Amino acid sequence: MKSGGGRIIEKLWEEVRELSLGSDDTRINRLDSPPTPLQFLRDYVSQNKPCIISNAISHWPALSRWPHLPYLSRSLSTSLVSLHLTPNGRADSIVPLPDHNKDDDLSSSLCFASAHQNDCFRTEYSGLAADCDPDVPWATEALGCSPDAVNLWIGNHLSETSFHKDHYENLYAVVSGEKHFLLLPPTDVHRMYIRPYPAAQYSYSHETGEFSLEVEQPTRFVPWSSVDPFPSPETREAEMDKFPLYFRGPKPFQCTIKAGEVLYLPSMWFHHVRQSPGDDGCCTIAVNYWYDMQFDIKCAYFNFLQSIPYGSLPPETRPEGSPSQTDVSEMSEQEPDEQNGDQ
Amino acid sequence: MKSGGGRIIEKLWEEVRELSLGSDDTRINRLDSPPTPLQFLRDYVSQNKPCIISNAISHWPALSRWPHLPYLSRSLSTSLVSLHLTPNGRADSIVPLPDHNKDDDLSSSLCFASAHQNDCFRTEYSGLAADCDPDVPWATEALGCSPDAVNLWIGNHLSETSFHKDHYENLYAVVSGEKHFLLLPPTDVHRMYIRPYPAAQYSYSHETGEFSLEVEQPTRFVPWSSVDPFPSPETREAEMDKFPLYFRGPKPFQCTIKAGEVLYLPSMWFHHVRQSPGDDGCCTIAVNYWYDMQFDIKCAYFNFLQSIPYGSLPPETRPEGSPSQTDVSEMSEQEPDEQNGDQ
Repeated sequence: MKSGGGRIIEKLWEEVRELSLGSDDTRINRLDSPPTPLQFLRDYVSQNKPCIISNAISHWPALSRWPHLPYLSRSLSTSLVSLHLTPNGRADSIVPLPDHNKDDDLSSSLCFASAHQNDCFRTEYSGLAADCDPDVPWATEALGCSPDAVNLWIGNHLSETSFHKDHYENLYAVVSGEKHFLLLPPTDVHRMYIRPYPAAQYSYSHETGEFSLEVEQPTRFVPWSSVDPFPSPETREAEMDKFPLYFRGPKPFQCTIKAGEVLYLPSMWFHHVRQSPGDDGCCTIAVNYWYDMQFDIKCAYFNFLQSIPYGSLPPETRPEGSPSQTDVSEMSEQEPDEQNGDQ
Repeated sequence: MKSGGGRIIEKLWEEVRELSLGSDDTRINRLDSPPTPLQFLRDYVSQNKPCIISNAISHWPALSRWPHLPYLSRSLSTSLVSLHLTPNGRADSIVPLPDHNKDDDLSSSLCFASAHQNDCFRTEYSGLAADCDPDVPWATEALGCSPDAVNLWIGNHLSETSFHKDHYENLYAVVSGEKHFLLLPPTDVHRMYIRPYPAAQYSYSHETGEFSLEVEQPTRFVPWSSVDPFPSPETREAEMDKFPLYFRGPKPFQCTIKAGEVLYLPSMWFHHVRQSPGDDGCCTIAVNYWYDMQFDIKCAYFNFLQSIPYGSLPPETRPEGSPSQTDVSEMSEQEPDEQNGDQ
């Protein structure tokens, strides 16, 4: 399945673009008003196809209120909220392992720094609930259920989440600033070089004012994409050599979601998220709604595709203890990727 | 991709049943009344999942009128209709080639005897149009378009169509008698042993009262399933040896659609159709509505799966001139299967 198999996988990347997604630069559909539930289901959810919707949240008081930080702090003054602090904005990302000798093999010196999004908007941030809708009405009707979780995101230009996918249908509403997405369809799973990384969390010391990164004990491995789509100029060439299927395959879908716009991010799509402040210079704020996805034939096809080995990391850069990906029969026993998280 | 690859393909067969379709005997959902367009789209079309609907066509005059043959002939008395005559009820089936020496290698002695269904209900049989609806209203609303074709089927207990798939969403309404379906999801494509067969047509001689089967000239190859799910007791063992993936894999979904019921047969599902008269002994009559399908990620996944060689016929039974299926890199150039037809 190495050479010939690779060719048919690469043909799949092309075909999903030709058949369904389009291949030019403006290929993510833009809707000027909210779709009907039927349109949304037929043209996007059923086809596992993203779209950007304008004028769907124009009535939210949040749009005018939240860009003023004093309003936010006043509304939350009686709430206990938890913050995910990082030294560099990178939560849910692959970062160097703490206390690791720089001369060591690079790949075994990485870990997964995680943040958790567990319905925070409806729990910790309920003081802001009246400023937006509890759900996306046309999505709720289309999908036949209420959101499983609603999350609030407040970040600055440093905040970044590396490539991953979620087992949810995702409606992502930007309230202030702009979010920049890179998107890849589930068919491109091999281009993500998903590997198991040891889970770790940042902890902040009030005494020293410094962050430390602590690997969970006992070690827990989280499957996550190894690809950084924006490597520094110094590492760019090495990264392109390590992840050729990403850097040499079809360009990811790129889009910017502005304040007042909503992105439909279909289940199982890989996404990388950055952000920038709006014209007012305020931080970037967004609310996302996770709806349960259907575990249907698309999901079975995905698990099948993922179980075909292609595009392994070279052996010397494979994280220690992780399974090799060279034998189809070995891979057939592997569990589907359980990676889950979001920004 | 031979042994290990086979294991992951067989795991896909299981997983699509576990995730989505169910694996017990009563696994095709039955609805007691027509679904709303949203339910139909969300729970069936989007998931590429069949269902049987009762009480959806109870208002059709056809249900009481068509079982009486004199009514049918009267209604069509001014119409010129074309009939597909066969000596044995098997149109759209693989049958022995005419003038072929029985001692020859079996596989090269077969051809594809075709019938054509091209919107006959709305053209040749329009005299009956007032007896049923021009479309299936909830399907039309769900799918966002009118039917591309409406076909009328009149057959007896000998009429049979062998396994094939259609590039349409199919609503299949039985008016008189019963239709017996065997269904396999698109993920089971390798179990169908689809091979190119030379196209042929029956012609009937009024002089001799006999049928002859004529192979099209120049030869045109039609990809069609090689599997006969009901072999005679004498050939059963040989058939099981030739098509082990079919006979030893998961059982096909089986269902009987009675007069007054509608089957939703999702696009790309393989189906084998037989029929039997109702209690009144009348022939079996059905109307089916073909709606355009979406060429989306499911379709791209299907083409990918189909391009992986697995379960080839042994070389000695491969139809002459047909491509071998042993090299992944060769297969990657193959066009997607264009098989199309129905009963």
